[in-house]
Amino acid sequence: MKIPSSSISRISLYYRALLSVKEASVVSSEEVSLLTGFSAAQVRKDLAYFGQFGTPGRGYSIEILKKELKKILGTDREWDVALVGTGNLGSALLAYKGFKHQGFNIKYAFDNDKKKINKLRQGVRIRPIDDLPQIVRDKKISIAIVAVPQESAKDVIDKLIDSGIKAILNFAPKRSKVPETIELLNIDLSMELERLTYFLQRGQK
Amino acid sequence: MKIPSSSISRISLYYRALLSVKEASVVSSEEVSLLTGFSAAQVRKDLAYFGQFGTPGRGYSIEILKKELKKILGTDREWDVALVGTGNLGSALLAYKGFKHQGFNIKYAFDNDKKKINKLRQGVRIRPIDDLPQIVRDKKISIAIVAVPQESAKDVIDKLIDSGIKAILNFAPKRSKVPETIELLNIDLSMELERLTYFLQRGQK
Repeated sequence: MKIPSSSISRISLYYRALLSVKEASVVSSEEVSLLTGFSAAQVRKDLAYFGQFGTPGRGYSIEILKKELKKILGTDREWDVALVGTGNLGSALLAYKGFKHQGFNIKYAFDNDKKKINKLRQGVRIRPIDDLPQIVRDKKISIAIVAVPQESAKDVIDKLIDSGIKAILNFAPKRSKVPETIELLNIDLSMELERLTYFLQRGQK
Repeated sequence: MKIPSSSISRISLYYRALLSVKEASVVSSEEVSLLTGFSAAQVRKDLAYFGQFGTPGRGYSIEILKKELKKILGTDREWDVALVGTGNLGSALLAYKGFKHQGFNIKYAFDNDKKKINKLRQGVRIRPIDDLPQIVRDKKISIAIVAVPQESAKDVIDKLIDSGIKAILNFAPKRSKVPETIELLNIDLSMELERLTYFLQRGQK
């Protein structure tokens, strides 16, 4: 069964909503709907993809549901992450507290700027990009974040894949083709702004 | 007719793909499919939401299609953007070349850190957040980017809306409720990583 990727994003949001519930042990799909803005039917449908978590008419145990959602999202464990590129954006990502909070630990950072090598940033030592293949292999890193300029993105992504990386979050604007076994998620910030101007434009018509 | 927001993202990608075509004046939906990885049927369906751009059997004129897609996305004009928060992430966004390239001009930057006020960053003067309402009104700014810590996000978003901002790209992890007339797009970077670990997790089963 193909689970739509929008369901995965909503599962993340349901999990975040449950974290904010302080004074209850059970929650209904209607309450999750109020907390997140998605319909109760959507909540039930998304959860049903992964199993039967609640009791009809009684709702979901918050503790169990939180545990199950973390398991679905793969955040019931910690993940070591490699960051490539420590310019403005890479540095912002190193400092981003949300990652650590969800169990994502940027433990290795790489750059090709000789002046940066061996410097500490947010407690992480910046290493030469030539060290990448060995570290990814030795430390069994599955996830990398790419925050390099557009012109280096393809080379970096190829190098990551050759080194055994399984999943890549790419902030470089250029889209690269990757083998089907690799998960590549492209974040293009100007595309997000285009979604806003699309709505502004339509609203003005 | 309700147009799915995934269509809007694909329209952005089609536009980007067309920019890379150098030696042709006409393109077919099959060619757009090859360039972007979406099916030709998907390409035709997405474009059909907005009108009849091509000639059946002959394809689309690249020049006309690029113009039409820019019009749909609202990027056939320049947009002045206000940035709130000039920490690591805000500074990265100020330096992000992709915005300017697509006609998004971060012209005003605000912070509440007295040490930063009046400093120039990427050629933009940092202003006190108290100046925000007047600038947004006087300069008729429609779009703001919020890159403040989680605990300030709600206040900043309320202030932006009171000042007349119509569309907000929010990087603070906390989701805020906004009136229906306001477009709020939340970027939660750890949610993106969760989409990757979800796939890693499933792949390992």
